[in-house]
Amino acid sequence: MTTETKGIVPLLDPASDPGDTTVNGSSDNKMPGKMKAVHYEGPFKVSVKEVEMPKIQHPDDAIIKVTTAAICGSDLHMYQGRTAAETGLVFGHENMGVIVETGPGVTLLEKGDRIVLPFNVADGRCRNCEEGRTAFCTGVNPGFAGGAYGYVAMGPYQGGQAQYLRVPYADFNGLKLPRGTEHEADFALLADIFPTGWHGLSLAGFRPGESVAVFGAGPVGLMAAYSGILRGASNVYVVDTIPERLEAAKKIGCVPVDFKKSDPVEQIIDLNGGMVDRAVDAVGYQAVDSSGSKEKPNIVLDQLIMVTRPTGGLGVPGLYVPADPGAPDEQSKKGQILLSFGKLFEKGLSLGTGQCNVKAYNRYLRDLIISGKAKPSFVVSHDINIDEAPTAYEKFDKRIEGYTKVLIHPNGPL
Amino acid sequence: MTTETKGIVPLLDPASDPGDTTVNGSSDNKMPGKMKAVHYEGPFKVSVKEVEMPKIQHPDDAIIKVTTAAICGSDLHMYQGRTAAETGLVFGHENMGVIVETGPGVTLLEKGDRIVLPFNVADGRCRNCEEGRTAFCTGVNPGFAGGAYGYVAMGPYQGGQAQYLRVPYADFNGLKLPRGTEHEADFALLADIFPTGWHGLSLAGFRPGESVAVFGAGPVGLMAAYSGILRGASNVYVVDTIPERLEAAKKIGCVPVDFKKSDPVEQIIDLNGGMVDRAVDAVGYQAVDSSGSKEKPNIVLDQLIMVTRPTGGLGVPGLYVPADPGAPDEQSKKGQILLSFGKLFEKGLSLGTGQCNVKAYNRYLRDLIISGKAKPSFVVSHDINIDEAPTAYEKFDKRIEGYTKVLIHPNGPL
Amino acid sequence: MTTETKGIVPLLDPASDPGDTTVNGSSDNKMPGKMKAVHYEGPFKVSVKEVEMPKIQHPDDAIIKVTTAAICGSDLHMYQGRTAAETGLVFGHENMGVIVETGPGVTLLEKGDRIVLPFNVADGRCRNCEEGRTAFCTGVNPGFAGGAYGYVAMGPYQGGQAQYLRVPYADFNGLKLPRGTEHEADFALLADIFPTGWHGLSLAGFRPGESVAVFGAGPVGLMAAYSGILRGASNVYVVDTIPERLEAAKKIGCVPVDFKKSDPVEQIIDLNGGMVDRAVDAVGYQAVDSSGSKEKPNIVLDQLIMVTRPTGGLGVPGLYVPADPGAPDEQSKKGQILLSFGKLFEKGLSLGTGQCNVKAYNRYLRDLIISGKAKPSFVVSHDINIDEAPTAYEKFDKRIEGYTKVLIHPNGPL
Amino acid sequence: MTTETKGIVPLLDPASDPGDTTVNGSSDNKMPGKMKAVHYEGPFKVSVKEVEMPKIQHPDDAIIKVTTAAICGSDLHMYQGRTAAETGLVFGHENMGVIVETGPGVTLLEKGDRIVLPFNVADGRCRNCEEGRTAFCTGVNPGFAGGAYGYVAMGPYQGGQAQYLRVPYADFNGLKLPRGTEHEADFALLADIFPTGWHGLSLAGFRPGESVAVFGAGPVGLMAAYSGILRGASNVYVVDTIPERLEAAKKIGCVPVDFKKSDPVEQIIDLNGGMVDRAVDAVGYQAVDSSGSKEKPNIVLDQLIMVTRPTGGLGVPGLYVPADPGAPDEQSKKGQILLSFGKLFEKGLSLGTGQCNVKAYNRYLRDLIISGKAKPSFVVSHDINIDEAPTAYEKFDKRIEGYTKVLIHPNGPL
Repeated sequence: MTTETKGIVPLLDPASDPGDTTVNGSSDNKMPGKMKAVHYEGPFKVSVKEVEMPKIQHPDDAIIKVTTAAICGSDLHMYQGRTAAETGLVFGHENMGVIVETGPGVTLLEKGDRIVLPFNVADGRCRNCEEGRTAFCTGVNPGFAGGAYGYVAMGPYQGGQAQYLRVPYADFNGLKLPRGTEHEADFALLADIFPTGWHGLSLAGFRPGESVAVFGAGPVGLMAAYSGILRGASNVYVVDTIPERLEAAKKIGCVPVDFKKSDPVEQIIDLNGGMVDRAVDAVGYQAVDSSGSKEKPNIVLDQLIMVTRPTGGLGVPGLYVPADPGAPDEQSKKGQILLSFGKLFEKGLSLGTGQCNVKAYNRYLRDLIISGKAKPSFVVSHDINIDEAPTAYEKFDKRIEGYTKVLIHPNGPL
Repeated sequence: MTTETKGIVPLLDPASDPGDTTVNGSSDNKMPGKMKAVHYEGPFKVSVKEVEMPKIQHPDDAIIKVTTAAICGSDLHMYQGRTAAETGLVFGHENMGVIVETGPGVTLLEKGDRIVLPFNVADGRCRNCEEGRTAFCTGVNPGFAGGAYGYVAMGPYQGGQAQYLRVPYADFNGLKLPRGTEHEADFALLADIFPTGWHGLSLAGFRPGESVAVFGAGPVGLMAAYSGILRGASNVYVVDTIPERLEAAKKIGCVPVDFKKSDPVEQIIDLNGGMVDRAVDAVGYQAVDSSGSKEKPNIVLDQLIMVTRPTGGLGVPGLYVPADPGAPDEQSKKGQILLSFGKLFEKGLSLGTGQCNVKAYNRYLRDLIISGKAKPSFVVSHDINIDEAPTAYEKFDKRIEGYTKVLIHPNGPL
Repeated sequence: MTTETKGIVPLLDPASDPGDTTVNGSSDNKMPGKMKAVHYEGPFKVSVKEVEMPKIQHPDDAIIKVTTAAICGSDLHMYQGRTAAETGLVFGHENMGVIVETGPGVTLLEKGDRIVLPFNVADGRCRNCEEGRTAFCTGVNPGFAGGAYGYVAMGPYQGGQAQYLRVPYADFNGLKLPRGTEHEADFALLADIFPTGWHGLSLAGFRPGESVAVFGAGPVGLMAAYSGILRGASNVYVVDTIPERLEAAKKIGCVPVDFKKSDPVEQIIDLNGGMVDRAVDAVGYQAVDSSGSKEKPNIVLDQLIMVTRPTGGLGVPGLYVPADPGAPDEQSKKGQILLSFGKLFEKGLSLGTGQCNVKAYNRYLRDLIISGKAKPSFVVSHDINIDEAPTAYEKFDKRIEGYTKVLIHPNGPL
Repeated sequence: MTTETKGIVPLLDPASDPGDTTVNGSSDNKMPGKMKAVHYEGPFKVSVKEVEMPKIQHPDDAIIKVTTAAICGSDLHMYQGRTAAETGLVFGHENMGVIVETGPGVTLLEKGDRIVLPFNVADGRCRNCEEGRTAFCTGVNPGFAGGAYGYVAMGPYQGGQAQYLRVPYADFNGLKLPRGTEHEADFALLADIFPTGWHGLSLAGFRPGESVAVFGAGPVGLMAAYSGILRGASNVYVVDTIPERLEAAKKIGCVPVDFKKSDPVEQIIDLNGGMVDRAVDAVGYQAVDSSGSKEKPNIVLDQLIMVTRPTGGLGVPGLYVPADPGAPDEQSKKGQILLSFGKLFEKGLSLGTGQCNVKAYNRYLRDLIISGKAKPSFVVSHDINIDEAPTAYEKFDKRIEGYTKVLIHPNGPL
């Protein structure tokens, strides 16, 4: 962060603090109409380019000056060219910032408000939104239930790995934060991974006092595990094989389980004195077998079934897709997974799936952060300037130099 | 029933009314220690033999004189020799009758009480029972969660297709009914299929006003559909191909859908003006493709996924087994099913499975029957004497002469 | 519209169909800016006057041409001068109609859409709205949680007993109906009393198969009782003393209980063979004692406590107010009620209260109406022209000539 | 045991470990049939006397050798002579110990098992028990819903402040603990106050991330507050006036509020930046006004109503009674409380009440203790020998010398 290049663009001027709510942050009020953004070029290539500034398009829109935008593991799917993302897409669905402009329909927020945005774009007026299922909004992405910023097939919304961002239905989507810069890293995680991990537990039907097994200790898995700790799990087992991840799990009070050592299901049953009450799949469709390298899409789901006691519940926040051209077999290409359904039935398990309805949780998690009860930013590995984004994508994709969770500050450090 | 032979056996004496609570119902108080029971002989063969009378084995046991025991579709699995059931097993897990003897630990019930028994045998004192998950009792079937009367692998309990039945943990398992013979057929269905159909809706997360698709219009499917009507579904679509079943569904207020005419998912979406809120699989692992004859174990589950709207729920009361040696393919033999999991996830669907915890519902369904609000016996096709059981099994197995739901009255007509 | 004043009520002209979405419905497209509305003059006096036409004030507003606006019992509080309502207030919070204009922020609805409006005005973007508690919206009525059309202290919203109505946050508040005129009376009740009655049961924690006692058989009480029938109550007892109301309760399948005959609690316990599972107070703070004339504000609440079995639940949709200057005693004036709290605690009862979040239910109730499963309009006693409103208020207030539920068609009959 | 009377209290002999499961713990296996017990003599007087040893009375009974029995604040009601308790009653409803004998119906527990007992005596077979509402069991206390050990009007069960205790329906009521003596003080609190505090939050409808106000910081209030911390409350405010209690609240992470300083409702709203989501009454019917000495039975309930935000919830685990002859006014004598019901309704609050169904929580809380996540014994002030009980009652009643939570070890220290 210290290396932040003295920019040509006034937007990067360190004087341009996030409390500065002029549109371009320059002292001369020049309105160049351009901003820096992380621009998708093609497989394994992003660049930082100047693109058009976002504009109010609907009365309920707002524009924020982005203070933090995180890189998500799911951005890598696009980065790796395994999706239909087209050149020019601006990435970034984990965004927060300060409002610089509001449309005439905005009634609750105002210029200067600091807000964090759910990765879901939602209209707040369709049936699913009114029932709290904002991840399945039917009003923002024609023909589909669910929208997001900066993501292929999730609607026409540019991402927030840019200096400014248009926020549709701003009153509904923006969660107000205390002004200033406090808890910036913690709050940034309210956009996606903290609520998504929390959601995993809820999908599993978790109740306090129960035992939980979380498969996968990437950022979402760690957040699921941390949510278990915060919500009063008696025991949380975390399955992974990367030492740093297992160590992180241990630090927050969980029991680490290395799936390369031996069957993680057996390990957990031994440690727990029996099967657990709930299990969470924070891995998704690119699960690998015990070698750690060969994709085996059903391995984690089947482990969930095996490790959970009769009457228990499974939560699947980890992504599964209806079509995956790069999958290892014909069935997986069509999004079909072979499940031990007979065992699932025999045990009477319940299963909850799907993207996180961030708004269902983010208010409460914010309050836990403010009161000091939660500090999810322990998963953050890097804070960077936007110009460092291409490098960060490359290293994060290769999982080198400890890149696990990167926060971009597109308008400079706070 | 009309053909009931004037009995040689006093137990069949019409004078032997269910209110008669002497153990053998004979006027001379002779205690021969024997009773008639439906005896499994081997594949496609049951006989009615005299077997030992049941005895109190535990202080909380009771003995009932069986007034009605139904034959269940799942009895056919054993009948067809597709299970490990051994010669001598007395069938019958849908039982009701009158108490003739109680152990010294029984505190709530007494001799003369008319009770109906959940098909689940449950101890009322293990963790799962105390949480209302009586189908997964850990105290009645060592090494397994769940017990039942007269069923292979479900514990050492003889079935109720016999003149007398031992009822373990009688206070907990017996649901008291008004004395007499009123509503006998309706009450008999409280042992299994009415609660199991109702459970299907609950597993799917049903709320009143929603639309439901029920796959399968056998007795359980019809009960699920009927439950939808009783609980305030806006529309209930019932998928089958047998005209009598579709007709029955229509009669109770549902919309019949013949899966042989065209893709039932498309039919329902057309009729409903969109996907339904909830879907129930009342078919299970022996599902067949649109030809109606070739087994395709995943077809119904996938149809559930396709017919249900994003954020909706799936309920699977239909049986899936962890091992099925007679299955059409290697994976199904191991109880593995290929699911469109990517689509399930994309829609954020929830899935509930497992045997019905009958006690969670039977009290309420009983009250609906008593008040005249529910009359599930519309599915009953035959009332028979126990001596007719071998014939009934044969015809029911062949689905001929309208055999759909048979009630055996082992001590003669009421 | 101007022609209407001289006319023999052109509003009744069959040519003036509700599908006509020109703002004034006249053929000459003249826009005089005036419309007829029910205008509060002072205690026991309303008149129909020409007032200003509503205008779009916020981008998310819409204007509807009102096809039906019902008179609610709660309108009588204002009519009787027992509130702070000021001269000029246009009454009407049970409204439906056809959209004639939309603001630029409206994205889901369009001109010509037929919609029904919850009595609650809600913004769809505050915390309470996002959690489905639209009756407690904090964005529409400064300093208070909750807004409504045409009601004192519920925000600056004119009522719908007028030819046109401004609908704030139209996408969020308007529930789309099939175009045309079918089910008009049933749909009109979706604005308030059908959901409010339904809410009563939900507040009480009702589950299907349970028994329910509903106190009060006015329109809301009948809707609560009808909801019990629709949702699968085993028995619904309805307490009132007016023969027509008790008769109506009986017709829909409930058991009528006349509180003047003897203690209704005892009657119900006798009829039910014990206390009921749930009880609903559809009377509110103007409850009267068994004489039927003396106000006794706590009588119904205490009867709820007494008639409900231990572990049961109480639902209170009936209105209680924090200040009632016209109350019979000092405590009631301050909204304080003397409750048998010791008994409530001993029984471990739960209690739910508050105005109905109409949006939580109206979509589902609409679908029940469309599918023919529900027909709540049996409570409607009169369909009138707007000019008849003053007479209707007078007679409804006096409870004469069978005035129980009046539907005003401000733009003439459909 | 006989030797104890003459002895220098062999019960205190370290050799007399709780793992010793002979009935009298003596080496000579003599069965004198007598044991020490805390015996109620009359107002303000208990003595330790020899009474008859308990015997198996029903096949499902067990006898435990009591290792720990706590004195509860509610024991003081009887001690003070404000109940109908008769001379000879053995007190003690918070009990744990080791099984020394089981009836022939006991199937899950065995001699030597260490168990803790819910204060509720429940049969596990009535409707309320099967639905998890064990505090309202209808099978153990004729004519009433709910039973308890050693408590007036709660059935014919002697208390556990004695060397041995009969446990009815032992399999159902006994919660198995790891053998040995570890966590004894923590586990002892599973009998009542830890689950009861936890229940308070559940009654209030608490969800993690919410803010909570707990009124009363006696043992139950502190347990409610601690439960809030364990279950992920964002902020927990604890109202009391005794410095030690407020200090204890602060130590576990809560915000202490002294009601004598100023209106606690205002204090909390100031501290919280608005009303809280949930409020818990851990005081009950003997609430006092801000002077701290004059009883004002409705003060806490009204504060709950005022401090909770619209749509929030109130939980009342604090005891209210249907009849209280010693109450300060006529209405309170009849268990009637004057509530600000108009405000409660306006806010749409929910209210949950009643004794704790200990079994609904104790298993989970036990696991939290075992895993080290919970350590509720911070409230314990004294560990004593049974002979010290009379003194402990006296001092606890006078609230002197820090007596807040006393654990009696009737068979000597562990």
